[in-house]
Order: sequence, then C-alpha cells, then structure tokens
Amino acid sequence: MDLNADLGEGFGQWGLGDDEALLRIVTSANIACGFHAGDPGTMRRACRLAVQHGVAIGAHVGYRDLAGFGRRFLDVEPRTLVDEIIYQISALSGIARSVGGTVTYVKPHGALYDALGRHEAQARATVTAIRQCGEDLAVLGLAGSPWLGLARQAGLKTLSEAFADRAYTPDGKLVSRREPGAVLMDEQQIAERCVRLATGQPIEAIDGTPITVRADSVCVHGDTPGAVAIAQAVRARLLAEGVPLSAVSGPQKETTTNARIMV
Amino acid sequence: MDLNADLGEGFGQWGLGDDEALLRIVTSANIACGFHAGDPGTMRRACRLAVQHGVAIGAHVGYRDLAGFGRRFLDVEPRTLVDEIIYQISALSGIARSVGGTVTYVKPHGALYDALGRHEAQARATVTAIRQCGEDLAVLGLAGSPWLGLARQAGLKTLSEAFADRAYTPDGKLVSRREPGAVLMDEQQIAERCVRLATGQPIEAIDGTPITVRADSVCVHGDTPGAVAIAQAVRARLLAEGVPLSAVSGPQKETTTNARIMV
Amino acid sequence: MDLNADLGEGFGQWGLGDDEALLRIVTSANIACGFHAGDPGTMRRACRLAVQHGVAIGAHVGYRDLAGFGRRFLDVEPRTLVDEIIYQISALSGIARSVGGTVTYVKPHGALYDALGRHEAQARATVTAIRQCGEDLAVLGLAGSPWLGLARQAGLKTLSEAFADRAYTPDGKLVSRREPGAVLMDEQQIAERCVRLATGQPIEAIDGTPITVRADSVCVHGDTPGAVAIAQAVRARLLAEGVPLSAVSGPQKETTTNARIMV
Amino acid sequence: MDLNADLGEGFGQWGLGDDEALLRIVTSANIACGFHAGDPGTMRRACRLAVQHGVAIGAHVGYRDLAGFGRRFLDVEPRTLVDEIIYQISALSGIARSVGGTVTYVKPHGALYDALGRHEAQARATVTAIRQCGEDLAVLGLAGSPWLGLARQAGLKTLSEAFADRAYTPDGKLVSRREPGAVLMDEQQIAERCVRLATGQPIEAIDGTPITVRADSVCVHGDTPGAVAIAQAVRARLLAEGVPLSAVSGPQKETTTNARIMV
Repeated sequence: MDLNADLGEGFGQWGLGDDEALLRIVTSANIACGFHAGDPGTMRRACRLAVQHGVAIGAHVGYRDLAGFGRRFLDVEPRTLVDEIIYQISALSGIARSVGGTVTYVKPHGALYDALGRHEAQARATVTAIRQCGEDLAVLGLAGSPWLGLARQAGLKTLSEAFADRAYTPDGKLVSRREPGAVLMDEQQIAERCVRLATGQPIEAIDGTPITVRADSVCVHGDTPGAVAIAQAVRARLLAEGVPLSAVSGPQKETTTNARIMV
Repeated sequence: MDLNADLGEGFGQWGLGDDEALLRIVTSANIACGFHAGDPGTMRRACRLAVQHGVAIGAHVGYRDLAGFGRRFLDVEPRTLVDEIIYQISALSGIARSVGGTVTYVKPHGALYDALGRHEAQARATVTAIRQCGEDLAVLGLAGSPWLGLARQAGLKTLSEAFADRAYTPDGKLVSRREPGAVLMDEQQIAERCVRLATGQPIEAIDGTPITVRADSVCVHGDTPGAVAIAQAVRARLLAEGVPLSAVSGPQKETTTNARIMV
Repeated sequence: MDLNADLGEGFGQWGLGDDEALLRIVTSANIACGFHAGDPGTMRRACRLAVQHGVAIGAHVGYRDLAGFGRRFLDVEPRTLVDEIIYQISALSGIARSVGGTVTYVKPHGALYDALGRHEAQARATVTAIRQCGEDLAVLGLAGSPWLGLARQAGLKTLSEAFADRAYTPDGKLVSRREPGAVLMDEQQIAERCVRLATGQPIEAIDGTPITVRADSVCVHGDTPGAVAIAQAVRARLLAEGVPLSAVSGPQKETTTNARIMV
Repeated sequence: MDLNADLGEGFGQWGLGDDEALLRIVTSANIACGFHAGDPGTMRRACRLAVQHGVAIGAHVGYRDLAGFGRRFLDVEPRTLVDEIIYQISALSGIARSVGGTVTYVKPHGALYDALGRHEAQARATVTAIRQCGEDLAVLGLAGSPWLGLARQAGLKTLSEAFADRAYTPDGKLVSRREPGAVLMDEQQIAERCVRLATGQPIEAIDGTPITVRADSVCVHGDTPGAVAIAQAVRARLLAEGVPLSAVSGPQKETTTNARIMV
C-alpha cells in the first residue's frame, strides 16, 4: 500500500502544512508546482526532503489560480490546460533532478481533480499533457473515475486512490464535503478503514452498504496538527497489521519495514 | 556568427513582437519562461516554431515581475534566485522537449541581465542555478561582463553577445539607454556594424574611438515592425558578406547558407 | 443614445486597443480594474483621457484571471466575488477621483458578464457588491438579462446594452461567437443596425425575424484597427441621423452635438 | 500613545498572524492592500473587525510583490509607484467604507518603508500619491526618517513611529535585523521601553547611550503567538502606567481606558 499526501503547499512568506512531519509518514508526496500553490523555493525544499526520506515525488498539478488555491472550477481551454500541465510537470521535474530526485507520477489537484471526473475535454487534455511529457509518468486519481480509463487507454500507468477519512456513497463515489458526515474525524475509525482498504476488505458506505474500493494508494491529509496525528496513526496501524508501505509509481519501489516507524 | 532575439514575450491575451518573422532571421531564440513574460502556451508555440526553423532554444530567465516585464531591479535573495532560475529553465526545457526541441543555453533578461554585471551575489546565484540544472547549458551574456568569468570558472560554456544597434563606451560597455545616441536607428549603419562585429573588425565607440568587441552572437530586436526590418537587413547583409550564420550553443550546430535567405 | 467601449485593457508592458481613438468616439468608457486586465498606470491614464474627453467612467469588473483575460468562467464563491467587486470599483473610483473624474456605472466583463445571465448566486453577489459601494452607481448589462432585474429590485439604476456587431437569436439573445454569422463585419450594416437600435426600430434576428431590442447604450469594440474604423462609422452615422449621443450614467449628462464629430 | 500593528497579511488560503487578537490590543491597524499581501476578503474582514473594535484603519501600502511579501527592494519607476499607491489606498478606502470605516492614515510596508529613508524619488512619489488621494490622510513612518520631512513640506500630517522590540543605534536609527541583538525578545524589557517611549524618557541605544525617540505611535508585532503575548504585555503595562491609548490619525480620536483591558 502507498500513502500519499499533498506537500509544498506554501507560497512565499506563507506556509501551509508540516512537510517534514508528513514526509516521515507517507511514501508518495504530491508537490504543488506553482499554479495553485508552491513556489520554486517551496518546491525545491519539498523535493530535497522527499529524496532524503525516500519518498516518491508526484507533480500536483492544478488550475492557474493562486488566489483560490486551485479549488474553484476554471473553464480553461483544453489546449491551454495541456500547455499548463506540461509546464508544471516540467518545472517540478527539473527541480527534483537538481536535488537528485525524479518525478514519477502526476496527481491533479483540487477543482481540477474533481472536474476530471465529469469534464471530458479537460480530462483528455490532462492525459495528453502527461503523455507529451514523455517521461513515463503514472497518474494518480480517484478509484473508479472515468478519466483513469482515458489515461489507461492512452497507455499511461494508472494508480487508484482512496480516502480513509471521507465517506463514500453506495456506488463508490465520495460524499460531497457539503454533506453531513462527509469527513471522518475519528483517528481509530480512519486507521481501521485504511487497513480494510489496504487488505481488500469492504468498507461501509455512508448508508451502511458494504463496498469494496480497490486502491493502490490512500490519501492522508496534513494541513492541520490533528491531521498529522491521524496520518501517523494510519501509518502505525498499517505497519502493525503487517501491510508493507511503498511508493507505487516509478522504478524506485522500496519497501518500508516496521523498523522505519521509529523515525 | 549567431544572431539571437527575444521571443515568446506575450502573456495570455497580450502579444508582443512577431515571433514568426524573427524565427526566419535569427539562429538562436531567447524564450521567456513565465516570470517576466511568457506563459505555457506562448512558450510552447515559440519552441515549436523554433524547432521548425532549426533555431536554437535558450531560456530567457528573469525576475518574477510580470507587471514590470522584468525590467526593474529586484533585490531577491540569492538562494531564491537559484530556485527561480532552475524553475524557469526546467519549465522551458520540458516544454521544448514536448515539441522535439532542447534548451541549449540560458540568457538572463532585462534588469537581471544588467544586475549580473555588478551584483556578484546574484551573478553567483545565476551560475549556481545553471550548473545545478545539469543539462550542459551554455550561458549567453554581455561581452566582457564579469559574470561570464564567474560562469567560466564554474565550468560553464560562455557565449559573448554584442549589440549592433547600441552605442558603446570607449571601454567596451553599453551606453545607457538614457543617454542621447545610445540606440542606433539606421538600418545600414546597424548592418555595417554587425558585419564588423562578425568579422573581428573594430567598431566606433560613441566618442569615435575604435574598439574591438569579440562576440559569439549579435542580439537583434524584434518588438516593433521597424525592428524586424532592421533584423532582416542585418541577416541579409551578413549572408551577402559571406558570414555563415549558425547557433553557437548546444550540439546541433547547423550552417545557414545563402540559400536560406529566400525563406 | 450612449456608446460604450472597453478601455484600459493593457497590462504593464503590454498594450491592447487604442484608448485615445476610442475616447473620441464613445460617451462611456468601461475601464478594466486590474483583475482581468489593467494596472494602476493604465487605469489612471484611461481615466485622465476620459475626463479630458468628457466621457463617463465605468468600472469594468471581472474575474481574478489575468492569464485568461477574464474570459473563462471561474466558479468563485459569491461572498468572495462581493469583496472582489468592491475592491475593483473602489480602486478605480479613487484613481478616477485623483484625476478629477467619477465612476458612475459598473459593467461586468467577459465570462462574468456571461455568467450573470445564468448564475444567480454570482448575479446576486454582483448586485450586493455594487450596492455596498454606496456610490449611487448604475449597472450596465445585456438588454433582457435577468440579472438587470435583480439589480433593479435591489434599487440600482440599470442600463440596457445592445451590440450592433453581434447577431441576435429570435428571442433577443446574442448568438454564441462559436456559431457562424455571430459577428457582423460590414461597417455599413453595423452602422445601420445601430441607428435602428437607437431609434427603437426593429432589427433582424439571425433567422430574419424582426426583433426590437430596447437599449440605453450600444457597445462598440476597439481592440483592432478595423474595429476603431467601424466604431467611427457608427458614431458618424448616428450623428448624421440626428441621434444625440450622451452618457446615460451619473449626473453629468452632456449632449454631444454634431460639432463634436470634428474632434 | 498609539499602538499600531500590521494586519490582514494573509492571502487566499494562506493566513498570517492573529488579526482578532491584535485588534484587542492596538489602536491603529495597518491593513495590507493586496500588493504585498492581502486580498479583498482579507481586507474586508480586517476592516470589519477594526470598526467593531474602534481601531483606526491605515493603508499598509507596498511593492507589487506577493511572492516576496514586499520585503525586497524593487526599483519601480516613481510615476508607477504613484499610481500603485493611489490604487492600494483607494481599494482599501472603498472596502473600509463598505463596512462603515474610514482609512485615516498610510504606512508604507517592508522594503518600501526602508527605501523611503534613502530613495528620494520613491519617497517623493509616495508623498505625491497620498496627496493626490485627497482624503486628508496622515502618514506613519519611522521617527526621524527624512521622508516624513518631505511629507510635512507637502502639507501632510505626519506621525512618527518607534519600535519597542528593536535595538537603536546611538543616532536614533534601527539596528539592522542582520546584526546580533537587533531584535529584543524579553517581554518585560520591551514593555519597559514602550513606557519610556510613551512618556518621553530616554531609552538605551545598543551601545548603552541614552537616546530620546519622539514617537506618536509604537509598532507591535503579531505574526507569532509569542508576539501577541508581548503585545498584550505592552498594552497592559502602558495602561497600568496610566498612559492613555488612542489612535493618532483621523478625526475619530477615542480614548481607551483601563476598563478596556478586560476585553
């Protein structure tokens, strides 16, 4: 099982989240590339830390919208989106190389992530961009999202993602954050769900229906102190259950043993 | 002799200069990377055209200052400048690759170009950034500027640049644009100076002193219709005088013969 | 009849349109406020010229999207939109005052203009923002658009706008720019339609149906040399037909007589 | 005595400082206007809170440099700076009015604040901008700085500021933050200095020389939890010593009595 989290989400003077703490927990780091968050200094520091901790580096690409943190749908032209995604991946890729790392996957961020499930033109543009980067990049997206199918058809390696702290509908979609109960807060419950996701066991949808979500990676959050504690609990629980943790993208698969939980 | 020009200087809806016309004239294109001008679409189009015309691609890196077009000195921290230059080069590099091209050199832009001649910390930061990109990039800078010395010491290939349309002081520096007579406007005079620069003959400084400027490349401007005509005249004259034109950076040296003037 | 045009649409080094030419033609100037275009220098110059030419000043407010020129729908939160519109109006208002002018109306720009016809929450936010500015501002919007009704209900003075160079559907809406025939190019035809709009006569919809569009203002474009010539023809024709031209917003109504066409 | 602090320094998703805590301590709030920090939502919230707490609102104007938080010298053209400062003041002014407040003074931020002491053209531009806003605004600047003299000559009301947590040179300037001992950390020492500043008693310069700094306002910081505690201690000490606290700008002078310390 892979654990991923969003990192490098500061901008200039402004910080967000605790990158160092998260990099001791996750196996894949989604690093913002400067369009919705992140700047060259933030990106380079996050890459350097990821390399130090043996964590896979992913390009967390988003809409060009710093003021909105990429969380607002933007009706950008697909061909512009192609160019913007290539730009973001390329920038992070070069920065990663400058500190001895490699970008191995791409995860869309925020409103773009959401749009890809329903906006086919933007989904195709995203796939096109990743293919044209020509660096054998995997894509990480919501388990069951149709755009992962598009990516697969285009020859990209796809990785499915689940959320241990989000409620699911009976048909396997995420319950909207605006609905009550959409976000789970209980550390033990989240850790338990994560183990079930990792071991192929069904979890309960919001109405109690058991559903099975096949995921290569589980997303943990880290932008609040409480979130970091939850992420740590998730990791500890997975290792306690004997679930090996390792990045799923790229060639440098490495297994995290129980020993590493001491770090 | 190499002819270089600034390209891809639009932003979003706003255009600047005639990239297509210039790419029929020059052998090296300095392409803006999004910090002082340029956006992913502009950059990709410029790279595509450069590849089509066999023109070398250079990263025209600048201060993070779209509102000022990178023409105002910014007292950015050297370590931030390192990160920002790596970001810009990397972004352009990936975009160039996505259309079959390669970035082979770096030319600082505007106020950064000027600052490197006197601001040692920013000069060292620029050299460090280019080295850390690790792509065997040449640097293009003002003939005689001390920062080219720093670059050489650091193991970078350096290319010297002269301006056929700018007056020089007797000691080989550019006359400030604020001085009268700093910018030459006469097409024939500019073309004549360009031939002299290309063939190692002395040119006249602003006070009449003959000076010899050793240059690998001559910069032509293209942001006005008149400038494009001058650039065309320069190219035609050089070819008429039998001066071969080719890019000086990167491995793909190619000679432009008189035949190509027909394009 | 009022003629309005978009002005001050440059940004930093980049120009767009010919503000000086347009200000000799129109009676109302929609000035960009820095969110989709415009910067403080551009805005101040446009305001100064508008004051010199006795042209009414309107705040051309848009989405926060310089890279997309405000032409892409942005799903911004209504409460954020309220704050952003107040910010834009206030900035232009103070700049206008600093050169002896006054902002008398507000016209939404681009994708926001379009969204207001169908996105009620953004429409309400726009109305709220204009009311909270508390400066007795009129709003200028598409004739028949429901958001003008919301504005009227909220106590704002509303001004209806028609386009002489755009095709209309039989039910009085604009034909999408993506449809063939959506934009008229013939100078005489456009001028003729403008006279009909100004004198309450029906015009032909795209399918030939006669429709009557009641408009307080006609929008002319000026971002190409051809467009300026068309705008001049429209103005000349209106004056030749005896249609008085004057701004419709604010207290400083002034009539443009035939004499002024000489300027 | 007036206590002032920088507020509204977040941007979009990113927060900075604790505005609510500070507004219970200070009598004047320097609110960022969107150029180095702040966005319309941040500004409006800060203005609303300032009005609620009876705190004077000042425009904290800065260089156009979000990525650098306005802390890097930018060699902007003086006439551009005039326009940019008018824009910032106007935007905040309208936002303040929309929530029942008024901007009564202007304080330059960061690198602009520092530059005004030595860069006469930028200092004159700042004074020109404030005068052209024509709203009878006071200016708040470093006690003894020559640009306050320029402002006075231009007819502006000037307010001198001192820093209780910064070391001074024997000639009354601030010790550079790069020097050891430049920033004081001890709560009691800072409070003690503040009382001395407020009551016209000399304080010790960094070398022990007694110096007298005449100040209308003392700046407190609030961007760290520790800083808020220090600011609270400063306020409590001043009130305990019987120093009345009130804003020095604008017409709405109001006295804070000991009673208010309970809030």
